[in-house]
Parts: sequence; structure tokens; C-alpha cells
Amino acid sequence: MKTNRRHFMKAGMAMSTALLADSALAQDTTLIPSRGPGEMIDSSVTYADRSPFVKDAKMRGSANGLSGGGFTPLQHSRGMVTPSGLHFEVHHSGVPEIDPSEHKLLIHGLVDDEKIFTMEDLLRFPSVSHFHFLECAGNGMGEWMGPRGKTVQQTHGLTSCSEWTGVPLKVLLNELGVRGDPKWLLAEGDDGARMTRSIPIWKAMDDAFLAYAQNGEFLRPEQGFPLRLIVPGFEGNMNVKWIRRLEVGDKPWWTHHENTEYADPRPKDEIRAFSFYMEARSVITSPSGGMKLNGPGFYEISGLGWSGAGTVSKVEISTDDGKTWQGASLQGPVLPKCHTRFTHPWRWDGKETTILSRCTDDTGYTQPTYDEMYKLQGPIGMMHNNAIQKWHVAQDGEITNVR
Amino acid sequence: MKTNRRHFMKAGMAMSTALLADSALAQDTTLIPSRGPGEMIDSSVTYADRSPFVKDAKMRGSANGLSGGGFTPLQHSRGMVTPSGLHFEVHHSGVPEIDPSEHKLLIHGLVDDEKIFTMEDLLRFPSVSHFHFLECAGNGMGEWMGPRGKTVQQTHGLTSCSEWTGVPLKVLLNELGVRGDPKWLLAEGDDGARMTRSIPIWKAMDDAFLAYAQNGEFLRPEQGFPLRLIVPGFEGNMNVKWIRRLEVGDKPWWTHHENTEYADPRPKDEIRAFSFYMEARSVITSPSGGMKLNGPGFYEISGLGWSGAGTVSKVEISTDDGKTWQGASLQGPVLPKCHTRFTHPWRWDGKETTILSRCTDDTGYTQPTYDEMYKLQGPIGMMHNNAIQKWHVAQDGEITNVR
Repeated sequence: MKTNRRHFMKAGMAMSTALLADSALAQDTTLIPSRGPGEMIDSSVTYADRSPFVKDAKMRGSANGLSGGGFTPLQHSRGMVTPSGLHFEVHHSGVPEIDPSEHKLLIHGLVDDEKIFTMEDLLRFPSVSHFHFLECAGNGMGEWMGPRGKTVQQTHGLTSCSEWTGVPLKVLLNELGVRGDPKWLLAEGDDGARMTRSIPIWKAMDDAFLAYAQNGEFLRPEQGFPLRLIVPGFEGNMNVKWIRRLEVGDKPWWTHHENTEYADPRPKDEIRAFSFYMEARSVITSPSGGMKLNGPGFYEISGLGWSGAGTVSKVEISTDDGKTWQGASLQGPVLPKCHTRFTHPWRWDGKETTILSRCTDDTGYTQPTYDEMYKLQGPIGMMHNNAIQKWHVAQDGEITNVR
Repeated sequence: MKTNRRHFMKAGMAMSTALLADSALAQDTTLIPSRGPGEMIDSSVTYADRSPFVKDAKMRGSANGLSGGGFTPLQHSRGMVTPSGLHFEVHHSGVPEIDPSEHKLLIHGLVDDEKIFTMEDLLRFPSVSHFHFLECAGNGMGEWMGPRGKTVQQTHGLTSCSEWTGVPLKVLLNELGVRGDPKWLLAEGDDGARMTRSIPIWKAMDDAFLAYAQNGEFLRPEQGFPLRLIVPGFEGNMNVKWIRRLEVGDKPWWTHHENTEYADPRPKDEIRAFSFYMEARSVITSPSGGMKLNGPGFYEISGLGWSGAGTVSKVEISTDDGKTWQGASLQGPVLPKCHTRFTHPWRWDGKETTILSRCTDDTGYTQPTYDEMYKLQGPIGMMHNNAIQKWHVAQDGEITNVR
């Protein structure tokens, strides 16, 4: 057999064999004593937990206990799926506990027949399953004034990705029949804040759906159990959780949430309302802020790219502070409006440098620098921050967030 | 706007609006009183649990406490991902609790350099992420003598699907350099049974990998934490869990597990060893055994198709006991050696019938009937049972497992 040795471990990698002569390995094929029986199979444990050695955790908090949320630990992410238990969360009035057998969805307004649906009704309709990312419009707003976050969880942790299953809005709207000149759809959540957003009707009739399942099981409470809206590629808060009402109308509602919290300041005292799309963005999740390289040698650079406007067409990596760029490998499947895992082999020479990634989507749009973003969004336009993230590598291997 | 009413709910669906006049709906847009604040955001809860209303459970058991496992509740499955907590499990000596900082992997035999790798070493290598199903060779063996299982969990619950992330075997073997005339690779698990299987070297150099992550986080203990082999499309037990040793050799080892438990009786007193591939198979998960249709009307038929030999090219549905067939819709992405969700719209006329699905993969192979399988495998050839599953629909809507 042809051998094509790569020597990823030639330099810099901790080699546990250093203490053992190779000849000893060859003779002792057992090395580790055989185990006795493992933990007994308890038939009452019907849902497997994580290992007690795994501690990956959301960074969760709230100023007043009700508005706030939790950041996904992207530094520990692998592949493209976010475990449902680690999916980011943003709440405006805590997490309601809803009995699905009592939950109802009203669809009314410019429809031929207004209806109230139970969960049982909705589970009977034709369904779709799609992988999509969700990202908070404010993901990275804390970075606007300078590199504040220590880890990628702090800088980028308000984006996550799941397989969602539910009923297309167009199926429900066609069921009831739309009438008149419908242009917008109001989506209202059943939380204490009664979160409400206006969604353009074209999006509802395109790829939006009402999801009841995430990653193969019913939604977790923080993700809107028993029902949430998925508006693929649009800012997170429009994917209204615990949804209880849809109203078809001919103009946007200008709700509290779209007038204030999710309206975006722009230069010359302008305000941009209805910033639908989360534009193309990427970030290196490993190595990233707070990690430390263990000497020169091989490291796999790994990260995530995504675009709310389409499909990631390429992610480029620079390991010399943006002077030169190389294409990263995209781990398939590469799907629209979905996280895409990228990887890139890198041999660190042990010298101080800065590593960064930039994403281009299939509309031709490329992720901007902070300088470009400042010109576009002005000094307080901190929402929808999709600027290129730089990680500084010090000579001792320490990784920090820099601009 | 053009209206294209579909009337999925015209007949047979429970309509909660039956109690309400439509005009009342139009005037009362609130209907459900607004909630007060939800549950406070507790910053110490850093991993989200399921809703207390969700009880989907593995069917878990063991005759002696150590060999046995758990069946995935496929009747509640949505999309193609199985939640890690509900992934099926089969164990030969319980579940070992392994500290990842102490876990070691020895690679030896026909290699230039024999090495012991720590988990820290392995996490430094180039990684891949792929969606793959795993299926136990004995999935459905209880069905061989007749339709015994009441639910699809009992008949088909030893198959599940995840996104796995890890290091390709070819990367590690190229790192050490293979020598001589290697033909096989021994994989040994670190459970009490020291599960060992011989894997052909061509498969190791093709798409096999050592996975440390499942669905975006480290493996759960029952899935081989901290490290398992993934041999895409091959029978479940070859995907050795808690892997501690790989030996490169020139012939198969004929281990206990491959001589006995996982050797397959065939007609004329023959035994087939090394039944690698799990062949193309499909099953309707909804409606399925134990469910009851609520009167005539629209139902979405939904299920899973998969093939260890390639990619699902089509799934066909019959709602008249196999007399006529129609192509189901495949929910993308349709990936090799991966569960594929299929859906098919069906209007039940309220008459007794039988519904079934059959899968064809891109090798041209089509899932066989039980009659065809009996001829092929003989009376006790109950492993690798991928026969077509029939669900009988009684006039009262009750669904049962039939042949």
C-alpha cells in the first residue's frame, strides 16, 4: 500500500508516546487494563444525558430576570448543528410555560375564513424540514465600540443552527384563502411581552413556516414551545416564539418592538426599520479568544459562515492580518440560510500574527471590515454588525480579540 | 393576490373553531388573555431541558442489566436528525464512564510508527463533519417470524441519524505510515466486553472516521464518549464505541463478536460473516402502529428512508396494499448513508386498507418484500432484515403491524 505520510504531529503537538519506547507499544497491545462491566442499563432512564465530564454551557443572564438570554458556546461547536440545549435565547419577558394541549393559533384579517388552530390541527398539515441558522439582530453589538468580548461566545454567541420542522405559512394561508390586497402579516407571541412583528407577505408565501420541532424533537421552551415562526435568514426576533396570532393586513403595524428595540440608527439621524436580512458573516471558532496555542506546529482553523440572503459560496482565511487570503474547505451539506462549517489547515510558525475569516454568499456580497461598516451604519448603528472578526495570536500562543 | 385554497381541513380534521362564529373571531383579535411574565431567566441554568409536557422516550431494557439497549421513538421523529438523547443504543457490557483526559487510543500493527494518542492529540487533527445513520444489524429481527411489534419504535427503533464530527482514519493512518500488505483493521472498544471488529482497510481509507462529537457537542456516554468509530453505512456494531485500539493487519481477526453474535445464518447451513452494508430500507413513521386516525380526511404520510450502500434515490408509497405506488417527496438535503425524511399527502376515504413504503438507492437496489427476504436469508436469517413494512388501517382508524 502506498503511504503518504502527512506528519501533522511532527512539531508542537503533545505526544503521549514520548514516555514510551515504540518497541514497548509493539509488544504490549493491551496497554490499558481491560474494564469490568460498565454502568447497568437502567430501563427507567429513557433520555440520555451528557457525560458528567462535559460542561459546555450557555452564558445566560438578565438584568431584571425577564429580558435577556443566553449565548451559545461557539468555541466548543462542531459541525453545523447546535445542540437544542445550547441554542442561543433572547427573551423580552421570560419563558412562558405552555401546555400544548391548550395552545391555540388564531389566523385572521384579510382571509376568507378566520380560524383558530390547535396544535393537534397543525400537526395534521403537510410539513417541511429545513436546516436554518437563527441570529439575533444584536449579535456582536457589544463589539461595536471596540473589541470587548474575550471569547467567541461573547462576541458571536447569538447565532445557532438547527433542523426545524413545521407547517409552511403558505399552506395555512392557502387553506384559509387570502383576500383583498394583503401585503403584511402580523406575528404575535404568547409571552408576557406579547412580542409582535410585521412580516412581508411575500416572505410568508415564500419559505416561512411555523415550526413545532427542532433537531428531531419538539421545541425546547426557550425556543418557543410549542410553536414558533421561522422566517429563514431574517433577524432573530422576527422568528416569533410561542406564536399565538397571525393577522393578514395591507400595511405594517409599526409595533412597539419594530419602532424601538429593532429599529436601526443610521448616519444623518436616519432610522432604518425592517432590517430583514442577516447579511453574510463568518467567524473562526477555533482557535479563538481565550484559547492558547501549545507551541508552533499544525492547527486546524475551524469556524462558521452563514448568510441570511442566500448560500455561503466561499469563506477565505488570512493568517497574516489580511495581507493574503486562502479559500477554506466548506464541510457539506452547504445549505441556504444555514451555518456552514469551514476548516483550513494551518502551520503556526510561532510568530505573533492575526487570523481572520471573511464570507461571500451567492448574491456576490462579501462580509465587510469594521471600517466599511462604520461608514455604512454610523457611530451608533451597532445592530446588524457582521464585520470581520480578528483574533490576535501572541508569541506565547495566547489568542485575543483585536480590531 | 391569487388564492389557491387547498382545504386540507375540509373533512375529518378536528376544528376548534366549530364552537366559535367566524364573526366573533374577526372582532376579538386577542381571544386568549395576555400572559404575565414568564419564568425568570436563571443564569445558573446553562443547558436547556425539554418541556415537562414532552415525554418522548427511548424504550430501554436489558435481560441481565449489561447487554441490551434502547429503541428510538421513531413515531415521534421529525426531520432527519435524531436527538442525541434519543439515539438508539446497544451495549454488550453496560456503559463505561470514561474520563476523556485519561482516554488513550493505540494505533499499531502494520504501521511505520506505532503511537498512543490522547483526546487532546486527536482534537488537533484535521476534522470532518458528516450526517450518517447508524442501524443495528438486528433492527427488526423480532419481526422475522411475524408481525410482533406494536409500534414503529419496536419494529424499527434501532436506527438513528446524527451529524458526527471527528478525524478521518486515513489522516491518522497516513500520519503513522502503513507498511507491508495491510488488508484489515481491528477496532477494539473500551467496554467490559471489549467489543472488537475487523474492518476492511479500503473502508478505513475511504470514509471511516473517529468521531468525538455528535450533533454539535461531545458524544453522549451511550454513544461511545469520548471516541467512537464511524464506518458509514456498515452495520451498527462495527461503529465501535469507546474505541481504545486500532491494529493494522493482513487478515481479519475472526473475533468472538464476528464469529457468533454478528455472523448471519443463510440457507443450506451457510453462515455469512462480515455483512458490512445495511441495505436500503424505509418505514412509514406516521401514521404507524398504535396510532389511530380520527376519521376520514387528509393525513400526511411521513417516514424515513436510508441506505448503507449509497443515497436514497426514491421512496414509493402504496396506500392500497401494494397494488399501486406513488413517489413520495424527499425532504432535502438527501445525503449518502443518511436518513432521508419522506412525506406524501394522503386523503383517507375511511375504508380499511394497508399502507407501505419501499426505498430504492442510487445503486439501483430496491427494498425487498418479506417473501423475497425469506428466499434470500432462510428461516433463521433474521439479521439484516430490511423488508417492506406494512401498516394496516382498520375502518375505525386503528393502525396495526401486519404482514
